[in-house]
Amino acid sequence: MKIAVIGGGSTYTPELVSGFIQKARQLPLSELCLMDIDQARLSVVGGFSQRLVRASGGQFDIRLTANRQQAIQRASYVITQFRVGGMAARREDEYLGRRHGLIGQETTGVGGMAKALRTIPVLLEIVQDMRQLAPQAWLVNFTNPSGLATQALADCAPDIRAVGVCNVPITAKMHLLVGLEADGHHYDPDQVQLDTLGLNHLSWHRGLKFQGQDLWPLVMELILREPAQYELGHWDQGALRALGMIPNYYLGYYYYTPQKLAEQERWPPSRAEQVMVIEQRLLAYYADQAHDRLPPELMERGGAYYSTMAAGLLAAHHNDSREVQVVNAPHQGAVAGWPDEWVLELPCMIDRDGATPLPAEPLPPEAFALVAAVKAFEMLTIQAAVDGDRRAACRALLAHPLGPSADRVEAVLEDMMETNRSYLPAFR
Amino acid sequence: MKIAVIGGGSTYTPELVSGFIQKARQLPLSELCLMDIDQARLSVVGGFSQRLVRASGGQFDIRLTANRQQAIQRASYVITQFRVGGMAARREDEYLGRRHGLIGQETTGVGGMAKALRTIPVLLEIVQDMRQLAPQAWLVNFTNPSGLATQALADCAPDIRAVGVCNVPITAKMHLLVGLEADGHHYDPDQVQLDTLGLNHLSWHRGLKFQGQDLWPLVMELILREPAQYELGHWDQGALRALGMIPNYYLGYYYYTPQKLAEQERWPPSRAEQVMVIEQRLLAYYADQAHDRLPPELMERGGAYYSTMAAGLLAAHHNDSREVQVVNAPHQGAVAGWPDEWVLELPCMIDRDGATPLPAEPLPPEAFALVAAVKAFEMLTIQAAVDGDRRAACRALLAHPLGPSADRVEAVLEDMMETNRSYLPAFR
Amino acid sequence: MKIAVIGGGSTYTPELVSGFIQKARQLPLSELCLMDIDQARLSVVGGFSQRLVRASGGQFDIRLTANRQQAIQRASYVITQFRVGGMAARREDEYLGRRHGLIGQETTGVGGMAKALRTIPVLLEIVQDMRQLAPQAWLVNFTNPSGLATQALADCAPDIRAVGVCNVPITAKMHLLVGLEADGHHYDPDQVQLDTLGLNHLSWHRGLKFQGQDLWPLVMELILREPAQYELGHWDQGALRALGMIPNYYLGYYYYTPQKLAEQERWPPSRAEQVMVIEQRLLAYYADQAHDRLPPELMERGGAYYSTMAAGLLAAHHNDSREVQVVNAPHQGAVAGWPDEWVLELPCMIDRDGATPLPAEPLPPEAFALVAAVKAFEMLTIQAAVDGDRRAACRALLAHPLGPSADRVEAVLEDMMETNRSYLPAFR
Amino acid sequence: MKIAVIGGGSTYTPELVSGFIQKARQLPLSELCLMDIDQARLSVVGGFSQRLVRASGGQFDIRLTANRQQAIQRASYVITQFRVGGMAARREDEYLGRRHGLIGQETTGVGGMAKALRTIPVLLEIVQDMRQLAPQAWLVNFTNPSGLATQALADCAPDIRAVGVCNVPITAKMHLLVGLEADGHHYDPDQVQLDTLGLNHLSWHRGLKFQGQDLWPLVMELILREPAQYELGHWDQGALRALGMIPNYYLGYYYYTPQKLAEQERWPPSRAEQVMVIEQRLLAYYADQAHDRLPPELMERGGAYYSTMAAGLLAAHHNDSREVQVVNAPHQGAVAGWPDEWVLELPCMIDRDGATPLPAEPLPPEAFALVAAVKAFEMLTIQAAVDGDRRAACRALLAHPLGPSADRVEAVLEDMMETNRSYLPAFR
Repeated sequence: MKIAVIGGGSTYTPELVSGFIQKARQLPLSELCLMDIDQARLSVVGGFSQRLVRASGGQFDIRLTANRQQAIQRASYVITQFRVGGMAARREDEYLGRRHGLIGQETTGVGGMAKALRTIPVLLEIVQDMRQLAPQAWLVNFTNPSGLATQALADCAPDIRAVGVCNVPITAKMHLLVGLEADGHHYDPDQVQLDTLGLNHLSWHRGLKFQGQDLWPLVMELILREPAQYELGHWDQGALRALGMIPNYYLGYYYYTPQKLAEQERWPPSRAEQVMVIEQRLLAYYADQAHDRLPPELMERGGAYYSTMAAGLLAAHHNDSREVQVVNAPHQGAVAGWPDEWVLELPCMIDRDGATPLPAEPLPPEAFALVAAVKAFEMLTIQAAVDGDRRAACRALLAHPLGPSADRVEAVLEDMMETNRSYLPAFR
Repeated sequence: MKIAVIGGGSTYTPELVSGFIQKARQLPLSELCLMDIDQARLSVVGGFSQRLVRASGGQFDIRLTANRQQAIQRASYVITQFRVGGMAARREDEYLGRRHGLIGQETTGVGGMAKALRTIPVLLEIVQDMRQLAPQAWLVNFTNPSGLATQALADCAPDIRAVGVCNVPITAKMHLLVGLEADGHHYDPDQVQLDTLGLNHLSWHRGLKFQGQDLWPLVMELILREPAQYELGHWDQGALRALGMIPNYYLGYYYYTPQKLAEQERWPPSRAEQVMVIEQRLLAYYADQAHDRLPPELMERGGAYYSTMAAGLLAAHHNDSREVQVVNAPHQGAVAGWPDEWVLELPCMIDRDGATPLPAEPLPPEAFALVAAVKAFEMLTIQAAVDGDRRAACRALLAHPLGPSADRVEAVLEDMMETNRSYLPAFR
Repeated sequence: MKIAVIGGGSTYTPELVSGFIQKARQLPLSELCLMDIDQARLSVVGGFSQRLVRASGGQFDIRLTANRQQAIQRASYVITQFRVGGMAARREDEYLGRRHGLIGQETTGVGGMAKALRTIPVLLEIVQDMRQLAPQAWLVNFTNPSGLATQALADCAPDIRAVGVCNVPITAKMHLLVGLEADGHHYDPDQVQLDTLGLNHLSWHRGLKFQGQDLWPLVMELILREPAQYELGHWDQGALRALGMIPNYYLGYYYYTPQKLAEQERWPPSRAEQVMVIEQRLLAYYADQAHDRLPPELMERGGAYYSTMAAGLLAAHHNDSREVQVVNAPHQGAVAGWPDEWVLELPCMIDRDGATPLPAEPLPPEAFALVAAVKAFEMLTIQAAVDGDRRAACRALLAHPLGPSADRVEAVLEDMMETNRSYLPAFR
Repeated sequence: MKIAVIGGGSTYTPELVSGFIQKARQLPLSELCLMDIDQARLSVVGGFSQRLVRASGGQFDIRLTANRQQAIQRASYVITQFRVGGMAARREDEYLGRRHGLIGQETTGVGGMAKALRTIPVLLEIVQDMRQLAPQAWLVNFTNPSGLATQALADCAPDIRAVGVCNVPITAKMHLLVGLEADGHHYDPDQVQLDTLGLNHLSWHRGLKFQGQDLWPLVMELILREPAQYELGHWDQGALRALGMIPNYYLGYYYYTPQKLAEQERWPPSRAEQVMVIEQRLLAYYADQAHDRLPPELMERGGAYYSTMAAGLLAAHHNDSREVQVVNAPHQGAVAGWPDEWVLELPCMIDRDGATPLPAEPLPPEAFALVAAVKAFEMLTIQAAVDGDRRAACRALLAHPLGPSADRVEAVLEDMMETNRSYLPAFR
């Protein structure tokens, strides 16, 4: 079995490799092929990854390549984690927002739109390669904005099986279990199911079950006691109680916009700038030939449970295990009354056929409305990216709840196009 | 035939009376019963209205009363145009928004919510009276927020036939026809159909047909040439072109929030304060026993085509004429894929059975999302008003695109309750 | 204004012409072009029609042609009433059923399927002509099976505006009004609305309103008293009472199958054979140059109110009159929960845009199920006709409630193909 | 853990007991309580069941009772397999059909309706007991008509968790695997998933997957080669090929009605009469104190895989194992476009929460139509049973594709009521 990783030079890669090493028994991998256009970085990250495998007994080979077709050929899984324009482009996304008095963020608002416009064309090239070289492979996308990218795949490449993944749901579940543990409640994580619904980075957790037993009252008590422990530092108890659900961290950008804008006034460093520093440290560590174990600071990079998620998902698929995991996929009517074609983040049963969404109660109307707004933005952004359609881009900005007021739309769009001009040939 | 007008002391009433006089042939009215709790005002407005009727030949009687049951008894139509708390409460709604850095407006945002909380309980008392005294009557609601009020009627009193009305669509149509006329295109208004969809004060005009002929390209050309002529002064040509539709005037609060906030910084006078002055002038005019014709400045009050709309609607109903008019009603599946129970503002066929929505193309996704958000706010506000449910009120504020950020929800709600405490017994 | 009639040699044509004469004021017709491939018949029927017009003052011209393109060119309306294979083919349809122990009928069961297979290819040739020669024209189809044919048009030619028409609903309405009249209740037919839902020849009448007043209790009393007066001779009072609706005459084939099978054992003459005799009498009458008025026996041919229906429909369209008429059209969500693409027979508002279905309550489940079964048969028959798809034809026979048992499907299909082989080139 | 079996005196019971013995490790049962109103039979069947348990090591107790409340109290599972009126009533159901020239069958047509009318009131008494004595228990219904009974539970007792079960799907799967095995293809049954959709005894198998691999082409080849091996003896190859699916055995009553009617002309013995003989033999065997193993002829009774199904289902629930099994449950939107409230027979994921339907492709239109017809019959039958509503019963007979023609409805209903009068107090 071969796995291809597009964007294999990421500093996350060793964490991913470590996941495959741990799951080796369930996932009989023979070759992991890391592909990246940044060859220097790939040699550092790839070399370290090879040492990791060797130190653990060498169950599979790691190959490095700059040739995407070669990586994809005959792969059973294609993992996408590339970043068009690298961390520098992310930094631009953040400051694009700030320049215009808007939220500046990698996946949310105008920054997320810029990133999507850069990413979608490359993703569609990858599925074109897959059609010819690995038509049966499963595409597992981690590239952000992960939900929007999966929507683009569902719309433009329904023939390719694809799923979008994010470590937020599994991280939320693990944090809650740690909190319950501290209160004296122990549950085996494999027996616990988190109920989540929404879009990627725009979801609400609203249930936790252990063998059919409802743990939600315990959970709400826990987070109302110490919201800051659960990335809900901004949130007031009253608002949380009114919701009765746990909002995904990124919802803070919508519900606490003034505070978030105030925070970004204090940049630098923006998040991209922080990550640049962390990445340099990590790359130095990886480059040291003496190192063959993961560095402890990997968690700081934000990858908590990234490897657990990815390796677990592939193992569930390979072994047809019918585990339930929260991923991004077209919901196919699982949420009654919501348009069938929407890609949602929700619990799916994973087996050899891929990810099958389980029936889910719709969100309350106020959350549905926010989902509809951001989904409208997503659909218009996809149209803009695929067709180079400037009017669709304009409508996407008007649609986004965190977008500019109508008089600023043209200026923001002009700036976005100009800043990213080398990555957006369709708009030239 | 008897018509009851609840809130008959409004300065609009003479305009309404004038409409009934003009339509007397199609609408064989015998008694118009004006009811108001403000008896001084009722005697001035009512006295003038009686002179209007007398001057035109006296086709029907006008009776004045402070007793609601007496007004409703045996009425064929009940027109609601009351205003709980009067113009002073409207002024409070406007300043409530401004105090919290939010849009301060009678029907939109936190002001609209306060007005709805005051209005819904009274409306439900009226339908209770109708059940006993005039179960076959048609309730025609003009009280703002008119769409939200109609949604409350549809949800809480489905046994009473009701429709919500607003003069924005007919005014938009007439303005467009005047513009086309100036360009040398003449069309008989009765043969022209405006295609509108959305919620009251949150709608988009997107079609104009004359005997099946599509006039929309002419219309878009017209409004792009002189947006300010069509209450689109804030709007950029780029944004209008991207939309391809004409936004209702009130959508400016959503698309040009910063400008609208800046404008209200220049208060006083707020809109309520302006109207107070106008109303004093009008009442002085009405009180003069020598006057038996409408004053020319009535249009300033905002009631353009109010009488045309109201009298035309009743006549279409009475004569089973199947005219198509834009009103607010549950759409019953007319817009495919939208929840059936939503009250929408859209073209309906008017006959003896009431208002039957005609099938309509859904709005584009960005407009749907805004409709969904404000509809979520409406449904939560209704729940709050009916049950005195503070948590629902809190969620309504969180749901509104122009509501406060989550940390300010409690403070805004507290202020709203305190300011309106005499009108909100359910929350005490 | 020009109207083209495809199948203009029909013995119905003089009735249609008479309708246009009577409606001449509302329908300013200049040319009626009768087209038929049977030129002998066309000259007889056409000649008589010309005398009819002349005798009434000659408001419009009648032209005769065997050239379909010439007929269609620049027409405002294209009326289709052709019959592929003529009355002889209808006779074969009837005996095809009888030979296999099945209902033998022109529009229902295996006979209707054979007729549809012959008809659809010709209909699609006509719309192909319309695309080039009269793209704005309205196609008004009377050719049976009229509902199935309209479904084929909606599926295969959505760019052409089309409506399917049948005189059953108007005839039912008029008969009911005559019955009510005899009971002392008089209503102006133009003010009365019949509520019908279902498919053509598979519909249920379930409401009658006069200016919003519900006449249904009177109607049910009437028909329960004398069912035979209303083509309900087979029907038991118990069954009618259980339904609470008036079944279309053709539903007798489904609900009284054994009796209908017994009746056809007594053939000849079958219905086609009866009609052949009537047609010969009519043609002899038409051929007599002395005749310039309609013969009294035209009603026997089954065309009651055919001209009222057709001329009224065109006049409503031309004058943008928004009259409500029962026709066949895609319901576009008017019946909540039914697939949007289904063509149904239901009240529609007629204006310059065509036929707009009005929202309608779904039928009770037992009627819905029958509609679903026959609609499945229709969709499979269309697939068979368009693609020459034998497997689809086989599935269509399995789907029809009056079709053969599964072991007889192949034999019936073979017989149908063989009997109609000159009309079904797609299956050769 | 306690399991209650209502109708514990059934000759099937030892097979069920044997299933619990085999699954003892996954299903830690302490008490199996067999309840029956026929105490003689219960003592024979129950005594033999106790010997079965003892012979296998005695993992759990078997208690016998005639008191339903006592059986249900504190049960974790309530299995219903009772038969109101016993085999004699089933025999009456069969001859009721035959007397009127209709299909005479236990679950299909008029016989199924009679059985449903007898069964539903008792089922509703049982859920009433459960509400008080075992509100958390899972009701697993085997009583026929199993799908109709589950629909009644879903409609009338949504608070009680219930699922309807039938051994047809598992038997079909096992037979297909035996056939594939003979062709040299071996698959582990636990890894194979049968895709079935429809109603109980009105379903279509249309997919078979082994670890995501599509086995359906192999299956269709297999059954087209030897249909009789798969209970498809009546079926023509052409019809099977046209369907592309395997029809449930009972669909033969719809597709081969004349043959089925001819077969029942050759009665006696009817199926009930055959089963009576088998049951006498089984009871004699059970009564012999020397016997403590299952008799080989149990399969003749029709219970193949009954124990596998029942014990496997309870074990999957108890162990929260997320296995996928074909059961009857409200589909909750799993089949897009079908009414959400319909109980369907389809693959569900079984865990502690019960049965969660997995998204499924809708059936082709001809199959949908048949489902809609029988579901209409079911809903009307439930209404008749619950309310003693004779008009609904009449409509149910009209709705059923195998029901009488409309003129015979009253007579059939009269006969049904008279024959079953002691079991239908609601209609007296």
